[in-house]
Amino acid sequence: MKLVASTLQLFSRHSFLSKTCLNGHCRKVLLSSVTVLHDKTAGPKWGSKKSRVLKVAKIRNIAMNDPVIEAQLAPLRKSVKEQGDIVRQLKADGAGDIDLQRAVAELKHRKKALEDKELALAPKDDFDRMKMEDLLKQKFFYDQSFAIYGGINGLYDFGPMGCAMKSNLLQAWRKHFVLEEQMLEVDTAMLTPEPVLKASGHVDRFQDYMVKDLKNGECFRADHLIEATLEKLLEDKKMPEEKKEEIRALLPLIDGMSKEDMAETLKKYNMKSPVTGNDLTEPLDFNLMFATSIGPTGQIKGFLRPETAQGIFVNFKRLLEFNQGKLPFAAAQIGNSFRNEISPRSGLIRVREFTMAEIEHFCDPTLKDHPKFAGLADTELMLYSACNQMDGKPPEKIKIGDAVKDKLVANETLGYFMARIQMFMVKMGVDASRLRFRQHLSNEMAHYACDCWDAECKTSYGWVECVGCADRSCYDLNQHTKATGVRLSAEKPLPAPKTIDVTECVPQKGPIGKTFKQNAKPITEHLTGLSAEEIDTLEQNLNDKGASDVVVNGQTFSITKDMVQIKRFQKTVHVEEFVPSVIEPSFGIGRIMYSIFEHNFKVREGDEQRTYLSLPAAIAPYKCSVLPLSSNPDFHGLVQELSSALTGADISHKVDTSSGSIGRRYARTDQIAIPYGITVDFDSLKEPHTATLRERETMKQIRAPISELPVVVKDLADGRRTWEDV
Amino acid sequence: MKLVASTLQLFSRHSFLSKTCLNGHCRKVLLSSVTVLHDKTAGPKWGSKKSRVLKVAKIRNIAMNDPVIEAQLAPLRKSVKEQGDIVRQLKADGAGDIDLQRAVAELKHRKKALEDKELALAPKDDFDRMKMEDLLKQKFFYDQSFAIYGGINGLYDFGPMGCAMKSNLLQAWRKHFVLEEQMLEVDTAMLTPEPVLKASGHVDRFQDYMVKDLKNGECFRADHLIEATLEKLLEDKKMPEEKKEEIRALLPLIDGMSKEDMAETLKKYNMKSPVTGNDLTEPLDFNLMFATSIGPTGQIKGFLRPETAQGIFVNFKRLLEFNQGKLPFAAAQIGNSFRNEISPRSGLIRVREFTMAEIEHFCDPTLKDHPKFAGLADTELMLYSACNQMDGKPPEKIKIGDAVKDKLVANETLGYFMARIQMFMVKMGVDASRLRFRQHLSNEMAHYACDCWDAECKTSYGWVECVGCADRSCYDLNQHTKATGVRLSAEKPLPAPKTIDVTECVPQKGPIGKTFKQNAKPITEHLTGLSAEEIDTLEQNLNDKGASDVVVNGQTFSITKDMVQIKRFQKTVHVEEFVPSVIEPSFGIGRIMYSIFEHNFKVREGDEQRTYLSLPAAIAPYKCSVLPLSSNPDFHGLVQELSSALTGADISHKVDTSSGSIGRRYARTDQIAIPYGITVDFDSLKEPHTATLRERETMKQIRAPISELPVVVKDLADGRRTWEDV
Repeated sequence: MKLVASTLQLFSRHSFLSKTCLNGHCRKVLLSSVTVLHDKTAGPKWGSKKSRVLKVAKIRNIAMNDPVIEAQLAPLRKSVKEQGDIVRQLKADGAGDIDLQRAVAELKHRKKALEDKELALAPKDDFDRMKMEDLLKQKFFYDQSFAIYGGINGLYDFGPMGCAMKSNLLQAWRKHFVLEEQMLEVDTAMLTPEPVLKASGHVDRFQDYMVKDLKNGECFRADHLIEATLEKLLEDKKMPEEKKEEIRALLPLIDGMSKEDMAETLKKYNMKSPVTGNDLTEPLDFNLMFATSIGPTGQIKGFLRPETAQGIFVNFKRLLEFNQGKLPFAAAQIGNSFRNEISPRSGLIRVREFTMAEIEHFCDPTLKDHPKFAGLADTELMLYSACNQMDGKPPEKIKIGDAVKDKLVANETLGYFMARIQMFMVKMGVDASRLRFRQHLSNEMAHYACDCWDAECKTSYGWVECVGCADRSCYDLNQHTKATGVRLSAEKPLPAPKTIDVTECVPQKGPIGKTFKQNAKPITEHLTGLSAEEIDTLEQNLNDKGASDVVVNGQTFSITKDMVQIKRFQKTVHVEEFVPSVIEPSFGIGRIMYSIFEHNFKVREGDEQRTYLSLPAAIAPYKCSVLPLSSNPDFHGLVQELSSALTGADISHKVDTSSGSIGRRYARTDQIAIPYGITVDFDSLKEPHTATLRERETMKQIRAPISELPVVVKDLADGRRTWEDV
Repeated sequence: MKLVASTLQLFSRHSFLSKTCLNGHCRKVLLSSVTVLHDKTAGPKWGSKKSRVLKVAKIRNIAMNDPVIEAQLAPLRKSVKEQGDIVRQLKADGAGDIDLQRAVAELKHRKKALEDKELALAPKDDFDRMKMEDLLKQKFFYDQSFAIYGGINGLYDFGPMGCAMKSNLLQAWRKHFVLEEQMLEVDTAMLTPEPVLKASGHVDRFQDYMVKDLKNGECFRADHLIEATLEKLLEDKKMPEEKKEEIRALLPLIDGMSKEDMAETLKKYNMKSPVTGNDLTEPLDFNLMFATSIGPTGQIKGFLRPETAQGIFVNFKRLLEFNQGKLPFAAAQIGNSFRNEISPRSGLIRVREFTMAEIEHFCDPTLKDHPKFAGLADTELMLYSACNQMDGKPPEKIKIGDAVKDKLVANETLGYFMARIQMFMVKMGVDASRLRFRQHLSNEMAHYACDCWDAECKTSYGWVECVGCADRSCYDLNQHTKATGVRLSAEKPLPAPKTIDVTECVPQKGPIGKTFKQNAKPITEHLTGLSAEEIDTLEQNLNDKGASDVVVNGQTFSITKDMVQIKRFQKTVHVEEFVPSVIEPSFGIGRIMYSIFEHNFKVREGDEQRTYLSLPAAIAPYKCSVLPLSSNPDFHGLVQELSSALTGADISHKVDTSSGSIGRRYARTDQIAIPYGITVDFDSLKEPHTATLRERETMKQIRAPISELPVVVKDLADGRRTWEDV
């Protein structure tokens, strides 16, 4: 119950969470007081437990466009809406938790029925994932790590093509975000000592439940296993309809199940290992961080960081100082993070080691507007608000300016980043029609967040969360301040100087040093850092009992009267101290890459076998190919010359002198997404030397002097010219 | 003894190691058969135990230039040379190990005397490390990680300035190596399962010895502790000279000490913890890898990789295939590696988590020439050969073409990379006069290497190994082949088809499957992969005993006659299979950065307080500053306009609108190495708008139209124009 209490307390700081939501334009669904009870992971950033939600919610926008389909969905939408309204009303009436929980369960049940219907009615997609994966594997974009050793699930290696694409993507990210906003980029340690992740909440809450095969020790994620078993039971023709109805009602509740709920469900349906049929353990806590030990003594417990964000927070003071004490500013970091998934699946989507690019925008909690917001206010985004999800409605295309004005999106800064994220994603090759921003329902929001929108890409795995855009409020800075006694705060000038009452605790070094020896320093720091309220309590205890206990670094010490002097006085202050809010756009690079692959995997019309990738030039592994028409040695000199000129102009390129018709070689370069191809042919040998330049999408060619081609390709690749111009 | 035997076996494959070295131009010192006995770490890449060697060897080139100093050193040089010759002669005469070992100890002793003298005679450097570190900390280039939690030794965070510089350095590295040579860059997992690192030798040999304080458990590196204790004893005035002589003789032997030697030394001198004076344990093996567990079962033991190279080797087959089966080719990787140092010191030089950039150039072992070598043959490098080190001679400036011709450097490819490495280092800001290539003595070479040259930079810590350039021969591919049964080899066409005898072992699936069930598949694969000699042994056993044991995945299985069919026949082959050699340039990015900092830390003449960093524009964190002359609001528009134009041209820049005189602000931008500064002043307000452009080194200024400045700065930063041109 302790965790629940503190979580609720945390959430209740944000006033909008206690607002009642009575109409279709509410910004937040009010389930927090009920469903936060089951909030079991620290942060579902690249969340461990969301795939199911995403899967069933897919293709909603498309369904919306077809009136025949819409007619079939209408009664289901209505049914969701009715129940959503009941939940809101119960909340407004201050109904008891149990009533509310029941109503929410029914709501989820109805949502699932709607989503299932949508899935069933959606037009069939002719995308062939197997075919794409073959191409990506064969051309070594990426593949399973340590395959010659049998492979390790959830670990992938990027080959030359994937690595070049990733590196291009990250450079583009740097330009689009870091350079554009003059963010402070950092590069911090991955090895992280336990106290840091204890403070951030990851040691206690970053976990999944698992069950173990009692005989062979094989592990399964409890929620996955329950879901799969229930779904299998539904397929059983002998199962009575009544029982099936019960199971259907249970399915949507899995996400919110507590450990006890899971234990009960496992027992009730007598669930066994799906692999061996053996009995299973009760659900066990499993922390998703990789643990290790730093240094030789084994005394410094550490973890591989589960997110890059904490490395920024613990450097907040240095960064603020670097920024000359001024807010707002944003820090950014690109780096790897690690999550020890229980049973990773879905390829690049759910992995144990992954690259993130995170931004932490620090600002005054009362000033979340953004100077550049006006310039982007007309950008249209596909927004799937919590409210629409509750009302059974599809996402809506809304101008971000309107969304912020209507309080659908919490503030300008959040809105600004959402618009910038969309620009970036589309520039990198994400299909705009398969991109949406989905607002977190409060029961799926991480413990630290007060509003969160995920940029989701539609793939054959369903809607996949690729970028999380959360208002983390001042949670993290507060936590690290509490843990270390170092105040992670900023100052702002007051409109007018102010006289305030100061309560100060002055530790007396002599007695403290004598009594506590090597612990004197942390105790002194702790005492100096006490808040006015804490000093009051301390003084009360000292007066009442002559001593007061303080806890420093996990140890309890008894402070006596002679060890502190309490001072109370008035002071004129010109600045106000405050803990900044953090707005965090957080990018999962592997997931974005995967979505880009799917959105750009194509088949040439009329030739099923000619698959290719239409990546934008900006992230294509090579910008250009150089192909001699045949193996005729006369071409050699020109090819070499061209290659040197391209290298000189920093244009990554591939010279393909292998045998095979020019058509086959074009097809090969298309497969690795090379956007432009220069062919040296017999006409090239004549002066002035010319060559053809072919574009991948149109397959059209032009002829130009060889000396001009590097500049032309550079301009095309950098987006300074378009193929039409050329 | 098993390890020693296999190591010797490995080394003996390389014919040059058994050549006798009788003159001053030998390429290799012949200590391998003696000193390899103590080769205790897998690879001293960013070696755990070399600092002492480097420290005492420093400033040799400089000493060389002063005839007065040289006169004082001459007798010591002669003494080293005499002993070097004795060692060579003993080797040539096939002397016993013990005699040889004694002679080598005496040689090391004399080398140390020479090096100590050199150190003592070297002119004093006025470099102030504390001052530089203050600047780097204050401007947040880098600082200790988790400082608010008390910090963790050996972990550092790069702040905005360090991170931008690192990112620029890595991009430059990509251009200089990957793009120029069309290398195949990969990005592989850091988490590595145990069998991979078992095969590479890291599980067994990547270790240091440590001793523990028996009371509080504090750990010390045994060699560091022994050295420090002995040096302290030497300072004791009461110590008799005879005893001191004994200690002086012992000091140079520490690097080569076995565990037993160390135990003996610790006991003999009754060594205690230098911190508490408590008793110590015997020396203990301590593996330097961070261990963790992959997945929830705890059954997959893993480590954080200690080098990025293994990720390339395990992908060799895919990379060869990507390169259409052709050799040579090079793969490259930039990424983090981890070493759990026992007691990290020396700042960025010795850390627990670090970025490496590694190249693995795969080639036919009989063809190590390089097509581009001729173009670089005249490049002069400062080479400090093993022979010169043995002869008491300083490094020599030698053209790389001559060094390869004279067999001083093993082959063209190694030489090509050494020249390219020097080009890169100098371009990045390393002072050419403080860069040398030092050849490994065979007793310090890693177990896998057959020749190795380190690019070392002279810093206040002594000569620091920044880039290792090793010929790893075919060690790694062989090891992974042995461990997995997957042949990591390439093919080349034979000059003429050849008829060969083939011995084939054909597993009989029926009986194998029946007997071994789920193990049938790996056993079948194992049998298929047996070499001709192994098949002979198998057949012999089957004939003699009716069965033969095979070990697969650590389990022993008994194979009977009915399970295999042995075939012998002749075959005409057109290609030859071979295991490629690997030449590996391996860059320690943190160490290179640190050397660059030291080489570019400057003080303005006449003003001790005005320190700055003269980083080349290519790696400077910001390329340009924009400074309004004062806080006059009229400047605001022009400053904004300029900033937007610079962002549009991808020029990283800093707008400094803070108060302070323009001179102070220039000084501030100099401290973060900004090479160019644009100042908007009152003249700028007049049409046509102009501004001044200042260069950091000369502090000279020019005036130019504002509209032209972004292009000018871009050209300057990219090296297309020089300041003199402008």
